[in-house]
Amino acid sequence: MTLAPAHVAGAGMIRFGKYPADVTLERMAVGAARAALLDAGADLTQIDACYVGHVFGGPVAGQRIAAQLGLDGLPVSNHENYCASGATALREAWVALAAGLHDVVLIVGVEKMTDRVAGGVRPDPGDLDAAVGYVMAAGHGLSARRYMADHGATREQIAAVAVKNHAHSVHNPFAQYQRPVSIEEVLNARPIAEPLGLLDCSPISDGAAAMVLCTPAGLRRLGLVAPGPRMLGCALVSGSVRPGTGDVNEEDVSRRAAEEAWKLTGIGPEDIDLVEMHDCFTIAEIVRMEGLGLIPRGAGAAWTAAGETSLGGRLPVNPSGGLLSRGHPVGATGVAQACELTWQLRGTAGGRQVEGARVGLSYCKGGTVNGTDGGSVTTLVMSK
Amino acid sequence: MTLAPAHVAGAGMIRFGKYPADVTLERMAVGAARAALLDAGADLTQIDACYVGHVFGGPVAGQRIAAQLGLDGLPVSNHENYCASGATALREAWVALAAGLHDVVLIVGVEKMTDRVAGGVRPDPGDLDAAVGYVMAAGHGLSARRYMADHGATREQIAAVAVKNHAHSVHNPFAQYQRPVSIEEVLNARPIAEPLGLLDCSPISDGAAAMVLCTPAGLRRLGLVAPGPRMLGCALVSGSVRPGTGDVNEEDVSRRAAEEAWKLTGIGPEDIDLVEMHDCFTIAEIVRMEGLGLIPRGAGAAWTAAGETSLGGRLPVNPSGGLLSRGHPVGATGVAQACELTWQLRGTAGGRQVEGARVGLSYCKGGTVNGTDGGSVTTLVMSK
Repeated sequence: MTLAPAHVAGAGMIRFGKYPADVTLERMAVGAARAALLDAGADLTQIDACYVGHVFGGPVAGQRIAAQLGLDGLPVSNHENYCASGATALREAWVALAAGLHDVVLIVGVEKMTDRVAGGVRPDPGDLDAAVGYVMAAGHGLSARRYMADHGATREQIAAVAVKNHAHSVHNPFAQYQRPVSIEEVLNARPIAEPLGLLDCSPISDGAAAMVLCTPAGLRRLGLVAPGPRMLGCALVSGSVRPGTGDVNEEDVSRRAAEEAWKLTGIGPEDIDLVEMHDCFTIAEIVRMEGLGLIPRGAGAAWTAAGETSLGGRLPVNPSGGLLSRGHPVGATGVAQACELTWQLRGTAGGRQVEGARVGLSYCKGGTVNGTDGGSVTTLVMSK
Repeated sequence: MTLAPAHVAGAGMIRFGKYPADVTLERMAVGAARAALLDAGADLTQIDACYVGHVFGGPVAGQRIAAQLGLDGLPVSNHENYCASGATALREAWVALAAGLHDVVLIVGVEKMTDRVAGGVRPDPGDLDAAVGYVMAAGHGLSARRYMADHGATREQIAAVAVKNHAHSVHNPFAQYQRPVSIEEVLNARPIAEPLGLLDCSPISDGAAAMVLCTPAGLRRLGLVAPGPRMLGCALVSGSVRPGTGDVNEEDVSRRAAEEAWKLTGIGPEDIDLVEMHDCFTIAEIVRMEGLGLIPRGAGAAWTAAGETSLGGRLPVNPSGGLLSRGHPVGATGVAQACELTWQLRGTAGGRQVEGARVGLSYCKGGTVNGTDGGSVTTLVMSK
């Protein structure tokens, strides 16, 4: 079944990057929220509720943000689904609008990682896979090796994901990195989990992104006569990443998340004009695009190297620069992806515009349980 | 406006208390979930989604729980609103049912506090009020002093809240404490924040509670011909606890949460037959009941001492024993309150049954920002 779509009245973010300690979580979130409110032409009195996605912000971070923003007396809720936290907050806001509970809602995704995460996100002490060395980067390294073996892909083809995404974000003023990187730079970067090097990995980032979503009545409240893009829905699937076939790249959970998205929105894979993909590692962009059924199995690396997923290609992926180059403040990422879809569908994405974009999909994957299953995948669909 | 109510198909919990380290968060949650599923006569394949409320469980705790329970591929989301986390999860589940997104959902509230919280919940390092000694217990101590000064209440009247709630939970097999305490025991307990002593404070607890909520189509899926109680709705209000009048007991946020609940459910204060109240401290039960408008301002202490809020009294409060005596595993509390309302409205509450109960309200308050504002209050209304 499909629910009523949510109208995007506003989108805003701050530049992702590494901020000093005095730029607090709350300050970043307030900056993004004000940008989204300004974009919507909305003031605080027109907001019905606030949905906040974050992982490391601590208890009632959303309430601290709302208080600093100047909201008082509204429903505020905190949503955590690891790297899919921001997307989950968007999903629950969309559901509340569809139910008729609210008409104008503010969604904020935020993370201050540099204060809390030194070097990388540490695995849970109870994570038995991590205890034997199967940490996140190692898992993606194995995925890359297996992909190369199974599909005859080359290391250069996988590195092309990083080259492409860094090239895209040269045109994104909100990206953490805004300079191109060469294939040699990717190949010669410090090894992290072979064959992957530093530039195959998304960075530790601080940042915030926000949106204002509305019902039709909400659009009228804001005096918006030309409705913006519509969020048609967002699927959420938690479960096994590997279905027990022994193939780390089967991405069964992505396949199911795609099916759910088509069911929830009435959109099909053939309608998708661009994708904001959770490229926490280069190889992840490739296998997840294939898992969604948007690129044939085994063809993703070759497609990337041939420019098919670049701006101007058959199916542009990560025009924003993605997690690899826009940055990855985990709770903010899902909302930043939806901001990018908004700008792309409005046709205001400047030098990184996907020409003629009518329908976009964004994908997040949040968390694993013991490195192998239990993660959450979100697939959000937005149309012009 | 009102949304469609959610039908309560099942409710279950484990006994609250202090569990050893090998009784993990996941194990407790699975125990409560299985009890709720059994009560609903539901099996795992009949569940559409899982909403998990917790504070200290760490990232994707809900996904770890769902995996151990045996769920795979469902939407799982984590909801944090401090001590209102469980109630917030119930609210978002209700909204999703009302929107038509799901038909049968599982809600779990859980907390393993003894592993993580030594002695008491520590204030945030950035909490400036806590830094000068205005910690949670101190705030409630001031509240009690002010209440006594303003309304001529006695220390004994405030202590009567603890005596009443412990007397109630003698009949609650899920309560952490199941023996009566005397007024002398309360008055002579170790001082915590004068005038409040140890028995005026809710304990550190481990525990889990769960519910199965349904649409009418969901009831048919489960083959339930005699629908149980209905959750009419749950308001959520975040904002100032003190409206700036200098009166710590004005409870403006509770007044607003009550107004929202009446608006969302079509129920009025005169309809309420029993209350499950967030009595994290004895005095809190009194001022929050008054803030809701269910007891006249300044009368709560005298009402309590006169037995008006006891079983058999004018308006029974905390027949379960409340946070003071059932215990307070923070993320579980809101769901445990809703379980208690379920059993009361079914008429299956045994020795603690409120005779003729037709409508119940549960109240949670979660978190503060700098000790004074930004908390979330939930008011959930359930009818027979």
